[in-house]
Amino acid sequence: MALTARPSASAPDISIYDRRESQVRSYSRSMPRQFNRAEGVWLHDGNGGRYLDFLSGCSSLNYGHNHPELKQVLIDYISSDGITHGLDMHTDAKAEFLGALEDVILRPRGLDYRAMFTGPTGTNAVEAAIKLARKVTGRELILAFTNGFHGMTLGALACTGNAGKRGGAGIPLSHVSHEAFDGYYGPDVDTAALLEQRLSDPSSGLDAPAAILVETVQGEGGLNAASPEWLRKIAAIAKKHGALMIVDDIQAGCGRTGNFFSFEGMGFTPDIVTMAKSLSGMGLPFALTLIRPELDVWSPGEHNGTFRGNNHAFVTATKAIRHFWADEAFKSDIARRGALLEKRLDRMAKEHGLSTRGRGMMRGIDVGSGEIASTITSACFDKGLIIETSGAHDEIVKVLAPLTIEDSVLESGLDILEHAIRAALSPAYGVAA
Amino acid sequence: MALTARPSASAPDISIYDRRESQVRSYSRSMPRQFNRAEGVWLHDGNGGRYLDFLSGCSSLNYGHNHPELKQVLIDYISSDGITHGLDMHTDAKAEFLGALEDVILRPRGLDYRAMFTGPTGTNAVEAAIKLARKVTGRELILAFTNGFHGMTLGALACTGNAGKRGGAGIPLSHVSHEAFDGYYGPDVDTAALLEQRLSDPSSGLDAPAAILVETVQGEGGLNAASPEWLRKIAAIAKKHGALMIVDDIQAGCGRTGNFFSFEGMGFTPDIVTMAKSLSGMGLPFALTLIRPELDVWSPGEHNGTFRGNNHAFVTATKAIRHFWADEAFKSDIARRGALLEKRLDRMAKEHGLSTRGRGMMRGIDVGSGEIASTITSACFDKGLIIETSGAHDEIVKVLAPLTIEDSVLESGLDILEHAIRAALSPAYGVAA
Amino acid sequence: MALTARPSASAPDISIYDRRESQVRSYSRSMPRQFNRAEGVWLHDGNGGRYLDFLSGCSSLNYGHNHPELKQVLIDYISSDGITHGLDMHTDAKAEFLGALEDVILRPRGLDYRAMFTGPTGTNAVEAAIKLARKVTGRELILAFTNGFHGMTLGALACTGNAGKRGGAGIPLSHVSHEAFDGYYGPDVDTAALLEQRLSDPSSGLDAPAAILVETVQGEGGLNAASPEWLRKIAAIAKKHGALMIVDDIQAGCGRTGNFFSFEGMGFTPDIVTMAKSLSGMGLPFALTLIRPELDVWSPGEHNGTFRGNNHAFVTATKAIRHFWADEAFKSDIARRGALLEKRLDRMAKEHGLSTRGRGMMRGIDVGSGEIASTITSACFDKGLIIETSGAHDEIVKVLAPLTIEDSVLESGLDILEHAIRAALSPAYGVAA
Amino acid sequence: MALTARPSASAPDISIYDRRESQVRSYSRSMPRQFNRAEGVWLHDGNGGRYLDFLSGCSSLNYGHNHPELKQVLIDYISSDGITHGLDMHTDAKAEFLGALEDVILRPRGLDYRAMFTGPTGTNAVEAAIKLARKVTGRELILAFTNGFHGMTLGALACTGNAGKRGGAGIPLSHVSHEAFDGYYGPDVDTAALLEQRLSDPSSGLDAPAAILVETVQGEGGLNAASPEWLRKIAAIAKKHGALMIVDDIQAGCGRTGNFFSFEGMGFTPDIVTMAKSLSGMGLPFALTLIRPELDVWSPGEHNGTFRGNNHAFVTATKAIRHFWADEAFKSDIARRGALLEKRLDRMAKEHGLSTRGRGMMRGIDVGSGEIASTITSACFDKGLIIETSGAHDEIVKVLAPLTIEDSVLESGLDILEHAIRAALSPAYGVAA
Repeated sequence: MALTARPSASAPDISIYDRRESQVRSYSRSMPRQFNRAEGVWLHDGNGGRYLDFLSGCSSLNYGHNHPELKQVLIDYISSDGITHGLDMHTDAKAEFLGALEDVILRPRGLDYRAMFTGPTGTNAVEAAIKLARKVTGRELILAFTNGFHGMTLGALACTGNAGKRGGAGIPLSHVSHEAFDGYYGPDVDTAALLEQRLSDPSSGLDAPAAILVETVQGEGGLNAASPEWLRKIAAIAKKHGALMIVDDIQAGCGRTGNFFSFEGMGFTPDIVTMAKSLSGMGLPFALTLIRPELDVWSPGEHNGTFRGNNHAFVTATKAIRHFWADEAFKSDIARRGALLEKRLDRMAKEHGLSTRGRGMMRGIDVGSGEIASTITSACFDKGLIIETSGAHDEIVKVLAPLTIEDSVLESGLDILEHAIRAALSPAYGVAA
Repeated sequence: MALTARPSASAPDISIYDRRESQVRSYSRSMPRQFNRAEGVWLHDGNGGRYLDFLSGCSSLNYGHNHPELKQVLIDYISSDGITHGLDMHTDAKAEFLGALEDVILRPRGLDYRAMFTGPTGTNAVEAAIKLARKVTGRELILAFTNGFHGMTLGALACTGNAGKRGGAGIPLSHVSHEAFDGYYGPDVDTAALLEQRLSDPSSGLDAPAAILVETVQGEGGLNAASPEWLRKIAAIAKKHGALMIVDDIQAGCGRTGNFFSFEGMGFTPDIVTMAKSLSGMGLPFALTLIRPELDVWSPGEHNGTFRGNNHAFVTATKAIRHFWADEAFKSDIARRGALLEKRLDRMAKEHGLSTRGRGMMRGIDVGSGEIASTITSACFDKGLIIETSGAHDEIVKVLAPLTIEDSVLESGLDILEHAIRAALSPAYGVAA
Repeated sequence: MALTARPSASAPDISIYDRRESQVRSYSRSMPRQFNRAEGVWLHDGNGGRYLDFLSGCSSLNYGHNHPELKQVLIDYISSDGITHGLDMHTDAKAEFLGALEDVILRPRGLDYRAMFTGPTGTNAVEAAIKLARKVTGRELILAFTNGFHGMTLGALACTGNAGKRGGAGIPLSHVSHEAFDGYYGPDVDTAALLEQRLSDPSSGLDAPAAILVETVQGEGGLNAASPEWLRKIAAIAKKHGALMIVDDIQAGCGRTGNFFSFEGMGFTPDIVTMAKSLSGMGLPFALTLIRPELDVWSPGEHNGTFRGNNHAFVTATKAIRHFWADEAFKSDIARRGALLEKRLDRMAKEHGLSTRGRGMMRGIDVGSGEIASTITSACFDKGLIIETSGAHDEIVKVLAPLTIEDSVLESGLDILEHAIRAALSPAYGVAA
Repeated sequence: MALTARPSASAPDISIYDRRESQVRSYSRSMPRQFNRAEGVWLHDGNGGRYLDFLSGCSSLNYGHNHPELKQVLIDYISSDGITHGLDMHTDAKAEFLGALEDVILRPRGLDYRAMFTGPTGTNAVEAAIKLARKVTGRELILAFTNGFHGMTLGALACTGNAGKRGGAGIPLSHVSHEAFDGYYGPDVDTAALLEQRLSDPSSGLDAPAAILVETVQGEGGLNAASPEWLRKIAAIAKKHGALMIVDDIQAGCGRTGNFFSFEGMGFTPDIVTMAKSLSGMGLPFALTLIRPELDVWSPGEHNGTFRGNNHAFVTATKAIRHFWADEAFKSDIARRGALLEKRLDRMAKEHGLSTRGRGMMRGIDVGSGEIASTITSACFDKGLIIETSGAHDEIVKVLAPLTIEDSVLESGLDILEHAIRAALSPAYGVAA
C-alpha cells in the first residue's frame, strides 16, 4: 500500500442528496466526494481519489476500515446464516462476546462489570447509564462538565455542553448541572475543589447528584484531557456524596488513549462505563453500558430497544478484542505512535506559538479560531487528508488516526497537516507554497 | 424446507449471562435456549432445535431471517471493502438507497419527503422527529396516545405510555400529554372529538402542541388499529391547531400492515414519518426520519450521531426495497396471508369468546390476562413456536410472522397456537391433549 | 342606606397610573374611577359616585365591605398595640382564631384538620397543598381540571387551565395533567369514569398522581358546579389510587355556596382544603391550608413566608366566624338569597334562550360570547353596578354579590343586569331604552 | 420606655397549637411564649414578659412595631371606611402611594420604574419578576446564587439555595442555575469572572439566561454582603449577555443597609427590583415588583392575585415613605446605629476569634456552628432578647433590630448578646455568670 494520498480533482454529482437528504447532514458538506471503498487508513471515492483518514469515524474506526480479520469473521458469520437480529435472546455470538470481554478485558484488569446491551448508539448507552444512576440513588440530578459531549437524545443531550446541539432540543434541558472540567478556569483553579465546596454546602443550591458523568478526554469538547489526580478527586467526591461515577468512554475508550479503557491505571474504578464507537472494531453500530454488579438493579426489559445486541457487532467485537488486546503488542504500538504524534504536534505548536491538547492517539492543536481551523482542514482535504476540528469554537484541529496506522503513514499525514498550518498561519509561506 | 418445528429438549449452559449480562435482559428469560443460526422463518439452537419465528424481532424481520438476496449483496459489499462506517459522508451505498427510496417508494406514492438518517434506532428517529416539531413550531408539548410506544431514550420515553418503562426514567417525564387512542373509551366515544374540544378551549389546560405522534397500529400497546376515519380526524386536528402530525411507522411500516407505509390510502399525509425495525430488510440497525421538505429546517449537524447512516443497512435496505416493492406481488402475498391470519384468529376467538386485534399481518388475540397469555406462549415455545405478547397487561398474544412466510407454514404455526389456546382456556382439553 | 346606584359622570385624573403602575393592571381598565370609600355592598368614588358591588373582590368580601363589627375589632386591636406582624410566633390573635375555627367550624362539622398558615394569598395555600401532597405520596403528578384556576405562582399556575395565564410562565408548565371537569364533554359523558379508566391502565401514560386538585364550583373557569355524585367519585378515585384529594375552596368557600365549606354534606372529606379570599372576613390578605392531621408531615419551617399568619386577619376572621357561623341564621339568609338569584337568572336565561351556571350565591349566565358579556358589564357599570365575567371566553356574566346583601338591593342590582342583557341581546329594545 | 428586657418565667398553655396548627410552625418552637402586644422594639406576652426584638419580623419591621404615626393613619383610614380590598382598582390609597413612591423615592434617586403590585408576599414579587424576565427575553434560565433565598412558591423556590427548603418541593427544581456568590470561594477567586467565562463559552453547558437574580446582602443565607465592584460586574455581565438584572431587595431594602434601596450609590441600575417585608412600614402584607418602563410588557391581568394592592398597606407605606425618607435624618440615624452595631460585633468577634458579616443594620457574627448559635440565641431569649440565626448551617447570629431603635437600647441588647456569646464560647465564664 502506497503512502501517498491522492485526492480527486472534481466533485461528483450529488444532486440526490440535495433532493432527498435532510439539511442536517454535515460532514458531507466539507467533503464533497462520494466514497465507495475503504481499507485500513484509506478512503476511496469513485473517481480514483484516495484519502488518508485522520478522522476514523470520530474514533469509531480505531482498527482502521474493514480490517481483514474482522471482515473475514463477519463474512463467515453471515455466510453461515448466523443470527443477525435476535433482540436480547441468547446467541452464540453474544456468548462469545461476553466470554472475550470477561477473559481478555475484565479479568486481567481486575474489573467486575456486567454488560448491558443498549440500543447500538452511544447516546443510548448514556441514557441507560443515567437512568440507572437515578434509579439506584433515587435522585434526579446528573453532574456533567463544561465542553462535555454525550449524545443527542434528550437525556444525553441535557448532559452535553454545546449550545448549538442543546438548542435543537426545543425544550429546556433539565436535571443536569454542568461543572467546570479539569483546567477549565486555568491551571491555578482546582475545579474539583469548587465542586466539592458546593456539594458539601446545604445552601449552595446544588442538589445532591445521582451521578457524575465525565469523559477522561473530551472528544468533541476540544480534546481536554483530565489529569489522573483530578479524576481521582471526582471519583472520591462522587463516593462521598452518594453519587455514582460514570465514565463516558465512548470516544476515549477502545485503545484511543493507550489502553482499552481510558481510565486504566489512574487509581479509581468507575461505577458505570459507557462504550460504543470502536467497540465493534469495524464501525458497526454497537454500544455497551458496563455496570458494577451490585448496581445492576434493572427489572427485565425496563430499558430495551429493538437493536440492542447487534449480533454482527458481537462477532467483530469478539475478534477485535481477542486480536488486539490479548497481549501487550498493540498497546505498545499505540504508545509509540502517540509519542510520535505528540512530538510532531508539539513541533507545530512551537513553530506558531500554539498549544496542544489530548492524550495517547487522541490529540489536537489549538489554532486559535474556527475560521483558521477550517482553512487548515480544507487545505488538508485538498491534499487528500481527512481531518476535522473539535472544541467550543471548532478551534482545535484534531488527529484521530486509526491506531493501526503505520508510523510512516502517520508521519506523511502529519506532514500534510504541518504544511497546511504553516500556510494558514504564515501567509507569505502560503503564497509561495 | 420442512414445515415442522422441532424444539430442543434441554436448555444450554447460560451461566455466562448470569455472570456478565445485566438483569435488564428479557426475551432470553422466556426462551432459555442459545440460538446460533437462522434462515427465513426458522431459528436454530445449538442442540438441533428449530423454532418457527412468530416474533420476527418485533417486526424487524419482515422479510425473514437472512434473506438470501439481502445476505448476498451484503457479503458482496463487505468483500469488496465497501464503506462500513462513514458518519454522514456521501457514499455509493447511501446514494443508491436514496435512489431506491425515491424511485420505488416515494414517487409512485406521490410522496415528497427528505430522509434524515438518525442514529440507527427507532427511539433516535422519534427523538429527531419531536425535536424538529418543537423547532418548527416553537412549542414544547407533544401529544401522544394511551398505549403508545415510542422508545426508551428520555424524549421518546416521555411519549411512551407504559408505566413500567416510564418508571425507569428516574425523573418526571414532561412536555407530553397522552390522549385517548381510537376506541380507548369504547366504540361510542369519539376520542378525536374529545381532543378537539380541549385543544379549541383556551381554558382547558392543554397547551398548544408542537406535534401529534401516533402509531396507526399500536405494536407494543396491544395491536390496537386506528380507523382511517379517526386518523384523518387526527391529521385535521393537527393541521387546524398548527401542530405537525408524526406517524411512528417503526413497527407497523415496511409492509407489516399490507403496504410499505401503514397509512397508505387513508387520505392524509403525515408531516413526519419515523421508520426503523424492518427498514434494513435484514434486521440491521437502521432508522430514518422522513420529513416534508418545507419542514426540513435543521442546521447542519444539529442532530447527529456516530452511527447515523449504517452503510451495511443502506445496502440491504436498497435491495429489500427493489426486490419486494417494485411491483404488486409482495403486497398481494401480504394481503392473502393477512386474510388467512385474520380468519384463523377469528376462529380461535369465536371458539373461546375472545376478541382479536390488529390489521394486515400485525394481529393478535386478547386472551384475557397476562397469566393466560404467558401460559399460551410458553406452551407454544415448548412446541417450537416463538410467539410473544403485547398490551397493557401482556394479555394480547400477537402474531408477527415474517411477511414472507409460506401460507402452509403460517397455518402450521397457527395450529400450534390454536392448540395452546385451547389447552389454556379449556382445561379438560388440556389434560386430554 | 338607599337602594340606588349612582354612578359618576366623568372619570378622574388617572395619569399617575399610566406613569407609575405596570401595564399588568386589569380591573381598573374597565372601571375608570378612583374609589375612596366602601361599606357593605357599596363602593364610593371621589366624585360622589356610588356603585353596587356584584364582584365582591372576586368573592373576597362575602360579608361586604368594612363590616362594622369586623372593622371595630380591628380598630380596637390596632389601638391596643396588638401584634401586627409576628411571623409564626404564638399570639393571642392566632390562638383565638384557632379556637374559633375549632369550636365553630371544625367540631360541629365533625372535621379534624390542622391549620397551616401559609403566605396570605390563595396561590400560596395551593402551593403548600401540592407540595405536601408530593411529599406525602412521593409522587410528582397533580391532576387538575379543565377550566380550573388555582393561582399565579409557578406551582399553582401549572394547575391553572387558562392559556393566557399559563403563557405568562415563560417556561413549560409541568408535573400536572388537566382532566375533564364534571360535564365538560356534555351531560352524557361521565368524565370521572374516563379518568378512572386511564388511572387503572398501566399503559395509559398517565402517571400515578400525588393529588387530585378540584374546585367544587369553578370561580374563574365559568362557574361550573360539579355534582356531589361526581365529586364523590373523584374522592373515591383519589383514595383508590393513593392520591390525596385537595379541594380548593378559595373562591367557593366561606359561605359563597351556602355553607362554610363548599363540599359540606356531599358525603366525602377532602384530605386537604385551601382557603383564602373571604377568610379574613374583611378582605385582608389571609390564607390557610387545612390538613388531615395524619398527613401533617411537614418539618418545621419547610414551607414558610414572612407574612404567614397575618394577625390583623386573625382578628377579623375570628370575629367573622363567631358572628356569622355560630348559628344557622346566616346560612338561611344565603339559601334564600341564592334561590332569589337563581330565579332571576333563570328568568333572564329563559327570556333569551341562554343557560345559567353555578350554585348558591355563586351564579352566572352564559351570554354566548365575551364581546356580548363585555357590552353587558359596561352597560351595568354605567348604571352603577360593578359586575364581571368569567369562563374560558369571558362569556359568563357572574354575580358575586356580598352574601350579606339585602334582598331588595340584590333585586335592584339584578334589575340593572336584566335590562343590560335585554339591551345587548334585543337590539331593538336597546335602542328604545 | 424603660430599657430593660423582662422575660416571663413560665410558658403559657399552648395546647391549641399542638392540636390545630400544622407542624410546619417554626419560630414559635424556640419562643414558647404567647405574645399579645408590641410597640417599637418591644414585644409583650400575656404574663407580663417584655422582649427586645432583634429579629424585627426578619426585617419586616424596620420602623418597629406599631409605629404611632403609621398606626394612626391606618386607624383613621379604617374608621372612615377607606377601601380595604379593591383588587387592582384605582383607589385614593393607591394613588397616594404611587405619588409618594414617585416623589420621595424614585425621582430624587433618578430612578424610573413602574410598580407592579403582586400578591402581597415576597415570593410573589419574585415569581412576577422571573416570569417577566422570561417573557421579555424568551429564555428560560434564571441565574441565582449560592445561599440565595427568594421564597417558597415553586418559581422562587427553584431560585433558593437552601436544601431543606428545596426538598419540600417534591419535584425537581428546574430552569435555574446557582452560581457562586461574591466571596463564595474565598477572597482570591473572582466568582463574577467564573460566571462570565462560562456564559461566553458556547460549549459550557450553561444556557443563555433570562435574568440574574441577586441579593446585595443575603439575608437568610448568612448575611453575606456583595461588594459594589462585584455587583457592578454582575450587572455588566447581565447586560452583555442579554439578561435582565433583578435585585431582590425584599430583606435588604427599605433602609436596612442604610438607604431605601440596598444598591444605591453602587453605580448600576437593576432592571427589576423586588420589595416586600418592611415596605408597608408596619408589617402588613405588601409586595412590589419595580420594572424599568421599557420592560413592562405585561398583558393586562397576565399575572394577578386576589390581594394584590393591599390598601391598608398602601396607607401605611405612604406614611412611612413620607415620614422617614423625605429628608436625610433617618439615613443618618441608620448610619450611626450601623456603625455602633459594627463596632460592637467586631469587638465580640475579636474577643473570640470569630468573623462578622453584613452591612448597615444587617449584620451578624459567625459563631462556628448552628449548635453554638442556638445556645446563644436561647440564652438571649431567657434574658428577654429575641434574636435569630442565619446561614447554611444556622451558624450566623444575626442582628436585625428595628432601624428606629434608640442607641442605648441597641447597646443594651448587644450587651445581652455579648454575654451570651461569652457564656457559650468561654464555658468557665458561663459557669461563673
